[in-house]
Amino acid sequence: MISKSMSPRVENSSAIRAMFEEGLRMARIVGPENVYDFSLGNPNVPAPPEVNQAIIDVVKTENPIKLHGYMVNSGFDETRQAVADDLNDRYGTKYGISNIVMSTGAAMCMNIIFRCILDIDDEVIVSAPYFVDYANYVSNWHGKLEVLPANPEGGFMPRMEELEKRINKKTKAVIINNPNNPTGVIYPESVIKEIAAILEKKQKELGTVIYLIADEPYRELVYDGTQVPHIPNYYDNALVCYSYSKSLSLAGERIGYVVVPDASDQSEQFKMALGIANRISGAINAPSLIQLALARCLRAKVDIEAYKRNGQDLYKALTDAGFDCLKPQGAFYLWMKSPDADEKAFVEALKEEHILVTPGSAFAGPGYVRFSYCVAHETIERATPGFKRIGEKYFQHGMAL
Amino acid sequence: MISKSMSPRVENSSAIRAMFEEGLRMARIVGPENVYDFSLGNPNVPAPPEVNQAIIDVVKTENPIKLHGYMVNSGFDETRQAVADDLNDRYGTKYGISNIVMSTGAAMCMNIIFRCILDIDDEVIVSAPYFVDYANYVSNWHGKLEVLPANPEGGFMPRMEELEKRINKKTKAVIINNPNNPTGVIYPESVIKEIAAILEKKQKELGTVIYLIADEPYRELVYDGTQVPHIPNYYDNALVCYSYSKSLSLAGERIGYVVVPDASDQSEQFKMALGIANRISGAINAPSLIQLALARCLRAKVDIEAYKRNGQDLYKALTDAGFDCLKPQGAFYLWMKSPDADEKAFVEALKEEHILVTPGSAFAGPGYVRFSYCVAHETIERATPGFKRIGEKYFQHGMAL
Repeated sequence: MISKSMSPRVENSSAIRAMFEEGLRMARIVGPENVYDFSLGNPNVPAPPEVNQAIIDVVKTENPIKLHGYMVNSGFDETRQAVADDLNDRYGTKYGISNIVMSTGAAMCMNIIFRCILDIDDEVIVSAPYFVDYANYVSNWHGKLEVLPANPEGGFMPRMEELEKRINKKTKAVIINNPNNPTGVIYPESVIKEIAAILEKKQKELGTVIYLIADEPYRELVYDGTQVPHIPNYYDNALVCYSYSKSLSLAGERIGYVVVPDASDQSEQFKMALGIANRISGAINAPSLIQLALARCLRAKVDIEAYKRNGQDLYKALTDAGFDCLKPQGAFYLWMKSPDADEKAFVEALKEEHILVTPGSAFAGPGYVRFSYCVAHETIERATPGFKRIGEKYFQHGMAL
Repeated sequence: MISKSMSPRVENSSAIRAMFEEGLRMARIVGPENVYDFSLGNPNVPAPPEVNQAIIDVVKTENPIKLHGYMVNSGFDETRQAVADDLNDRYGTKYGISNIVMSTGAAMCMNIIFRCILDIDDEVIVSAPYFVDYANYVSNWHGKLEVLPANPEGGFMPRMEELEKRINKKTKAVIINNPNNPTGVIYPESVIKEIAAILEKKQKELGTVIYLIADEPYRELVYDGTQVPHIPNYYDNALVCYSYSKSLSLAGERIGYVVVPDASDQSEQFKMALGIANRISGAINAPSLIQLALARCLRAKVDIEAYKRNGQDLYKALTDAGFDCLKPQGAFYLWMKSPDADEKAFVEALKEEHILVTPGSAFAGPGYVRFSYCVAHETIERATPGFKRIGEKYFQHGMAL
């Protein structure tokens, strides 16, 4: 007997996954080479060679008990030190082992944070469009996700006046996802400073602690020299969630970390609380072998040039066909205005060309669609005539609203 | 600001971990060889060689994108098929891929089950003494753990009349942990049948579904030919949680599975719900590399003779010293009556001999202590004079109550 809280989730299983299944079905009919699947965020660039070398090295040289055994729930010292060193070199911070809590990817990092900060009916704010599972992470712990309306005129930056208005005594955190899934935009330093100023002001006014949580799995995937600001340099109660899913193409391995700066509220207890949350949530710890390998190779990088080229060429193909797209700055997503106000109808029209994308409503962003461009470059080339035909249909034959 | 629900957990952080820290501190003072740490359940027998060979093989031969990439949230087909085949060969079952949901260890398996079956204030029953984190797994999802009083006269089997009395409309599950942590006993077939009969009867009477959840991370660690009964062969609404933490000494790798039998309630939707729970809880999936390696080596076995010998010799050393112990049948725990009704005072007395054990109250079993004997055999030998001295102190000098 499935619980009341779980039943609707089973009925409306994630739009992203449903699309995935549909792609497989279509591929069986027309052949996989004729299905242009832009729906899933599964990295398609292999992990850098340093990763597999590090795995083989630790398997061959590490103490066999340590290699596969428990460690403290927050992770191996050498892994946390390597992460801290890397951050310190890049952001001028002074993190040590204790500031880094390893967990099973950014999704679990967010869950253990919410486990530590949320009581029933506490609120967390995010700006639309947003990664759909944030709502689940918050509701797992019986909190409420408050969604700021999208800001297309302002480049999909958060609406600052709205943010300030929504914060109340129950507000425990604000999430930013930088670079953003699904829009591909990067919040620049000026935006981070504005958010920080609002949170500082509201903390003082309300006498509460409001965390700024940066979910940064795409931090390394930036394309035009833009820097992703390191939020603890702008705000004390900042928590950074990171994952090696994209930067090292290790999405299946489940490894990431939370940064807890010393300047944050009750930081000693909070670090301890995250370790406990790792244990009691069932994650226990990030996988041991991958942790040990990571300590040796975490500065390696996947070939982001492939993503960059995909982003540029997809943007060109779609704008050439007449569509209105946001130019991708980071991550591997392109956010495009649907020529039909009902973007789900447009998603269906794309399917006739065997082009699969995710409707914006799946991210609380109706009227838009998301292209995920972690695909073979050929997929973009082969889909281009389809983009053209659809563009003609909408823009030259008057179907666009 | 740590939530109200988390704060007490930070204050009273797990007794087991606290003991671990104390052991390290003591080791720094008297030297690690003079501290006899029986407090932690971290396997000390290395993973069988097949595991590391399988890891190296998959790293060298598997498609690099698949090796570290996402798969469906329930796991790779080949891994689930290998698990199903193994179970079918041993238990005469007919499981296929769909009956097996991989997750990040048994702790997460239990969490995703509770995510799927519990609404606020639903109840789960367990018999004392029990693994302390069950209470956390249930309260994560706002359920309530109902604890049956321990049954020392009945060999720590569940009190059947009490079980029947406690079941009501809100009862969603009964947990059994077989072999048991902390007692080391195995529930035989007759006990499973009795439990199943009670649950069948109450399901009919109440018109509800009551899952019997078997947490079986120690299933392979059995010492005197005893068989651990496979509960889906005795009861339809059975769910089995398994982990390779102990049987392959992979505790740090976080890999295990849930068995969902076809005969269980809403089994198709339930399998889907577990996959969704994997995703939204933040686990996403069991680590990919280890899943692929496991598909090639899951029938390998650690050297359980070492544990068996430890169990026998520890039992002998403690009973020779006058203590009243349960003979270990499975897992790597020995459950011993404290000669002082206040077992925490006894734990302190043992510390004077640099012997570290876990007080029974940490498992809702006051008046007892738990020895974890996944230690070097030498630890038992070197601790034996200390057992003797403590025994003399309590039994010959009249300190026992």
